[in-house]
Amino acid sequence: MTRILLCGCNGKMGRVIAACVKEREDCKIVAGIDIRTDPFGDFPVYASPSEVQEEADVVIDFSHPALLSPLLQFGLEHKLPLVLCTTGYNHDQVNALKQASHKIPVFYSGNMSLGINLLIGLSKKAAQVLGEDFDIEIIEKHHNQKIDAPSGTALMIADAISSVEDRQMTYMYDRHSQRKKRDKNEIGLHSVRGGTIVGEHEVIFAGPHEVITLSHSAQSKEIFANGSINAAVFLAKQPAGLYDMSDLLK
Amino acid sequence: MTRILLCGCNGKMGRVIAACVKEREDCKIVAGIDIRTDPFGDFPVYASPSEVQEEADVVIDFSHPALLSPLLQFGLEHKLPLVLCTTGYNHDQVNALKQASHKIPVFYSGNMSLGINLLIGLSKKAAQVLGEDFDIEIIEKHHNQKIDAPSGTALMIADAISSVEDRQMTYMYDRHSQRKKRDKNEIGLHSVRGGTIVGEHEVIFAGPHEVITLSHSAQSKEIFANGSINAAVFLAKQPAGLYDMSDLLK
Amino acid sequence: MTRILLCGCNGKMGRVIAACVKEREDCKIVAGIDIRTDPFGDFPVYASPSEVQEEADVVIDFSHPALLSPLLQFGLEHKLPLVLCTTGYNHDQVNALKQASHKIPVFYSGNMSLGINLLIGLSKKAAQVLGEDFDIEIIEKHHNQKIDAPSGTALMIADAISSVEDRQMTYMYDRHSQRKKRDKNEIGLHSVRGGTIVGEHEVIFAGPHEVITLSHSAQSKEIFANGSINAAVFLAKQPAGLYDMSDLLK
Amino acid sequence: MTRILLCGCNGKMGRVIAACVKEREDCKIVAGIDIRTDPFGDFPVYASPSEVQEEADVVIDFSHPALLSPLLQFGLEHKLPLVLCTTGYNHDQVNALKQASHKIPVFYSGNMSLGINLLIGLSKKAAQVLGEDFDIEIIEKHHNQKIDAPSGTALMIADAISSVEDRQMTYMYDRHSQRKKRDKNEIGLHSVRGGTIVGEHEVIFAGPHEVITLSHSAQSKEIFANGSINAAVFLAKQPAGLYDMSDLLK
Repeated sequence: MTRILLCGCNGKMGRVIAACVKEREDCKIVAGIDIRTDPFGDFPVYASPSEVQEEADVVIDFSHPALLSPLLQFGLEHKLPLVLCTTGYNHDQVNALKQASHKIPVFYSGNMSLGINLLIGLSKKAAQVLGEDFDIEIIEKHHNQKIDAPSGTALMIADAISSVEDRQMTYMYDRHSQRKKRDKNEIGLHSVRGGTIVGEHEVIFAGPHEVITLSHSAQSKEIFANGSINAAVFLAKQPAGLYDMSDLLK
Repeated sequence: MTRILLCGCNGKMGRVIAACVKEREDCKIVAGIDIRTDPFGDFPVYASPSEVQEEADVVIDFSHPALLSPLLQFGLEHKLPLVLCTTGYNHDQVNALKQASHKIPVFYSGNMSLGINLLIGLSKKAAQVLGEDFDIEIIEKHHNQKIDAPSGTALMIADAISSVEDRQMTYMYDRHSQRKKRDKNEIGLHSVRGGTIVGEHEVIFAGPHEVITLSHSAQSKEIFANGSINAAVFLAKQPAGLYDMSDLLK
Repeated sequence: MTRILLCGCNGKMGRVIAACVKEREDCKIVAGIDIRTDPFGDFPVYASPSEVQEEADVVIDFSHPALLSPLLQFGLEHKLPLVLCTTGYNHDQVNALKQASHKIPVFYSGNMSLGINLLIGLSKKAAQVLGEDFDIEIIEKHHNQKIDAPSGTALMIADAISSVEDRQMTYMYDRHSQRKKRDKNEIGLHSVRGGTIVGEHEVIFAGPHEVITLSHSAQSKEIFANGSINAAVFLAKQPAGLYDMSDLLK
Repeated sequence: MTRILLCGCNGKMGRVIAACVKEREDCKIVAGIDIRTDPFGDFPVYASPSEVQEEADVVIDFSHPALLSPLLQFGLEHKLPLVLCTTGYNHDQVNALKQASHKIPVFYSGNMSLGINLLIGLSKKAAQVLGEDFDIEIIEKHHNQKIDAPSGTALMIADAISSVEDRQMTYMYDRHSQRKKRDKNEIGLHSVRGGTIVGEHEVIFAGPHEVITLSHSAQSKEIFANGSINAAVFLAKQPAGLYDMSDLLK
């Protein structure tokens, strides 16, 4: 039974994780951390890691980039594996978590869904086989409350494709402001916003007389919750090191 | 048997029209007009309207905005109905063709496909029924040689939807450069470019827990050729006036 | 404040309706009816209509066709408007509810979603404009626990299209067992089943060189709950008669 | 300059191949074989392989299964590589061509498009990663003149997926005739027929709260023509053996 410390437990994703953990028998939440300390489940909630008194086997973090530093310190101090699901870390923060992974297990993935990580793998393979004759465009769709664009996942896909290309790819966000033909080396990125769409990503490879499209549609945040819980159960048994979703897929 | 004078006969669309007319029994091309006067079919080709010697019942124009003025003059002089399929007229030119329609029949439609015009009609209806709770986004996809974005058709759809809204709609081409929630009154416009895609348009209405999508996919330029030929056969029998695809749909 | 009697309150849809009503201020549930009488909300649950003691303004029924007869009797006796959302009534049952609508308001719609009803309206319009040159195919997708196929909604769409055709349409469910070309007068119906898909419907009009597709995607059962609650609030104020979603759209 | 003998040259695909070869500089057609021997290009057409007098480096066959036997005999006799693009061979015929490949190079692929073969590869990978939690459904769309269903390509995809599954998969063509939940081990196959659709294939993996879709859209038969011509140029230089598209992709 893996004992989980849930950081950001009062946020949207925190609550989904708590609900999903309740359905499982291989893990439980022993305590939560959040700015708002009013408990909503059957575990105590603390304002900061240092106040936690329960023993845990692993931390799942879905809070805020600003909390990374105290979290790393807490993990290193207690030799506690960390599943970091928060997005938006800056360059220094990514370096700090890599440093920490020399001493404790750290799981860090831009996206916690199994399906999204498969989509990324397949997109890389397709880009390699199809080559320069096929133009690559990415469309992502999210609800009308999302403030960033493109989605972090769309950028992950574009970066993954770029990493397997021999050529230097550039990202094109707006074709409206100019009159010119598409450049062979660009990846188009389009951000659709509307209603309550949970999250859709579509990678288009358009070539001479044929089009291949790879797409992923998320129905609910549970796919990210399940991914992070699986990662936590997995990580609790690993030695120090940096892990991501591809380790879980093997 | 409707006798057609084909302006822009040596261009891509001109040749498709010539091929389509050959398959029909209700019309024929009696002469062509083009900068390049080398004939490729069974009709003579002239450099300008004034040189044409054959008698015709109607003109189909798929040439260049610059040719509008001599075309209107020619039509008015010979009382000849004009099917104007060229896109990119400026404000003054649109006024000029409206003026001419007081004396001769003029058919002017931003898009000559039956399906596209149906899509526009259905999009207007959907916008009216669904109201402000649904966000509207348009995705268009075309081949990598197209230099303008968004497509004229995508703008036609957006304008048609705007015309039935009580509120003032704004068009959003790029969400990348800012961090903010979607505005209720915007229509998102996305231009995908790749391979040899002939033309696809998708209108998305995303609301609370449901999404309605209306889409059109063109397989070849023949749909525009057939639309313009149908318009010509229709227009040859009409009195002076301004006509568009909605008249053909009735 | 419309007082609702919820029949089938312990079923999946019943619980969603109860949750949605809680969020609203224009209505409340005063009592439930279900085979399982254990209460889960803040209202009493009875085994049959005759046991109900609370006063109500309208009934929402999401139970089982077998319950129609006692429900109609109960409605007629208490002059209570009935919103019938149960699907699968036989011919005699439909006649019975029509009979009842001479004396009390009866709302009966094969599908309670605003979007689905719009989709049906647009599909009828498209079929009329496009005519025999376009072949019609319907694809519906639902989760892997659904036992009937095609979905009632897919049949509603097919029936609505058939009703505006001059010709007699036949429904084609399986092309695998034969070797022959598509018949002009058939509507293809395809039932995809997988995962937890809530409900998707796609109407395809495929013609010469162009395809028009109209589609609806449901993200959660809330769209049917909201539709039925809106219908109940509406129906509580109507005179005797037979109503459906088109009355709500006006 | 690869010299091609084109079998089935007067059929639809034969003519497309002839047109595509004309655009290339690395090969040419030296003679054709067809029941109808009226020549339409700049090469002679014969009624059977034995009549051909021109020297060739490779044969492309897009004719009829019935012609396989004389073709194999002809290839073995003249040590001529064979690109077999005809579909519908029976078990014995497949064995016969495998036998022939011990002595001459034989290229045999159920589908000649690069994109389709990539789609098959990605589908196998996805099936392996996603496992039993995801249900697999295939939708294929073709024009209304196609007489077989499902398409050979859809069956190729289903067979390829089945080959990587530990469990025994069954194919489900019609859910209409029964009332029961989806079986975990079935692959649904749906054949949409309409208009002039060239060919679309969609592989759906629907799991808990997420759906992955891989799709291919063919715009014209040129993709199969180009694939077969590339195969011919490739095969002309190979030793005896059995080859397929995966050899061309390496």
